[in-house]
Amino acid sequence: MAQNDTVTLIGSWSSPFALRARVALHLKSVKYEYVDEPDVLKSKSELLIKSNPIHKKVPVLIHGDVSVCESLNIVQYIDEAWSSDPSILPSHPYDRASARFWAQYVDDKCFESLDAVAGAKDDEGRMAAAGKLMECLAILEQTFQKISKGSGFFGGENIGYLDIACGTLLGPISVIEAFSGVKFLREETTPGLIKWAERFRAHEAVKPYMPTVEEFVAFAKKKFSVQ
Amino acid sequence: MAQNDTVTLIGSWSSPFALRARVALHLKSVKYEYVDEPDVLKSKSELLIKSNPIHKKVPVLIHGDVSVCESLNIVQYIDEAWSSDPSILPSHPYDRASARFWAQYVDDKCFESLDAVAGAKDDEGRMAAAGKLMECLAILEQTFQKISKGSGFFGGENIGYLDIACGTLLGPISVIEAFSGVKFLREETTPGLIKWAERFRAHEAVKPYMPTVEEFVAFAKKKFSVQ
Repeated sequence: MAQNDTVTLIGSWSSPFALRARVALHLKSVKYEYVDEPDVLKSKSELLIKSNPIHKKVPVLIHGDVSVCESLNIVQYIDEAWSSDPSILPSHPYDRASARFWAQYVDDKCFESLDAVAGAKDDEGRMAAAGKLMECLAILEQTFQKISKGSGFFGGENIGYLDIACGTLLGPISVIEAFSGVKFLREETTPGLIKWAERFRAHEAVKPYMPTVEEFVAFAKKKFSVQ
Repeated sequence: MAQNDTVTLIGSWSSPFALRARVALHLKSVKYEYVDEPDVLKSKSELLIKSNPIHKKVPVLIHGDVSVCESLNIVQYIDEAWSSDPSILPSHPYDRASARFWAQYVDDKCFESLDAVAGAKDDEGRMAAAGKLMECLAILEQTFQKISKGSGFFGGENIGYLDIACGTLLGPISVIEAFSGVKFLREETTPGLIKWAERFRAHEAVKPYMPTVEEFVAFAKKKFSVQ
């Protein structure tokens, strides 16, 4: 496939993982067709099953005659296939390794805790899971302070790989906050992440694709039939 | 850190994940000090805890004054920090994305099935998990036939990123085969992987670091106090 081959992204409006691919494509000014799978957990299109036969999940990036799956993998692919500026991953090998490490931390530890909060069967389990999620966010706060060095994003002056990875947390966190009444991003514990989240949501490569907190909450209430 | 800064690898003799880092360092002819954590599940050195405070797991690569954790991340770091030939990841963006996708498949799906076989509480659970592991290996066989295109390795004529990722499966599979009496790599279902495994074990970048099947089995018997 070549840079000017057709590009299609299969996503889903509310998927925080599909958001990653959209932000990366926007940053690289790639023109693409967007195919939405409105209720991907219940019904999957033939195109999705054919292009991601192993996991059958969004997002999938179809570039010419090949498909790339798994959101972090797609973001790296976009950075390498459209290698002109801006770079999404940092340039130095250690900074790249650090960004990859923390992105994996988001997908493993943070989402594990988020899923545990959402899926807890009683208050005790929910409290324990909430505590773990807060620990994860406190660790991400330290990481932000260390990596961003006073600039606005994990990636420095502009958003990069780790910003895109962390950005997926914001939708699910806002839903859990609305349902539980508990604040997970707090001025006392995660002041840097709170300001980062505002900047991330308002960024021109994010805003067109990321549902607002209100839209996320309305979607989740409808999905779980909560009044 | 610079290429000629000191390099230390913290590993553990029987860790299939530490093996990844050793193979990558060998391929790149990097000189390093190897620090073994002989029983890392029970006792962790101060050096390990300090250099991998988040996960406290081997392997950790210490290069000058920075530490890189998580085995696949370390392999990518080695490929980028010592960028001279041989390349460990393929050069084309799609081939790189494909190698990363399947390496993640090994760590997620294959190891999930391996852990389920090893941790099953009864025969029924063990049979179900064994079936899933066989499905995973059949999918890897297809992938090998497609990617290797008749050459000896996933990476072509020489071992690459996906070979290094898949190589971690061989020790645990040999232990489970020895304990259960069931063959998971079979001539009928995974003929390509059987030959690939022989070549991988015999490769000069692997052989010095990978325990033999007999050593793996003896280690596991001692660990689980099986006669």
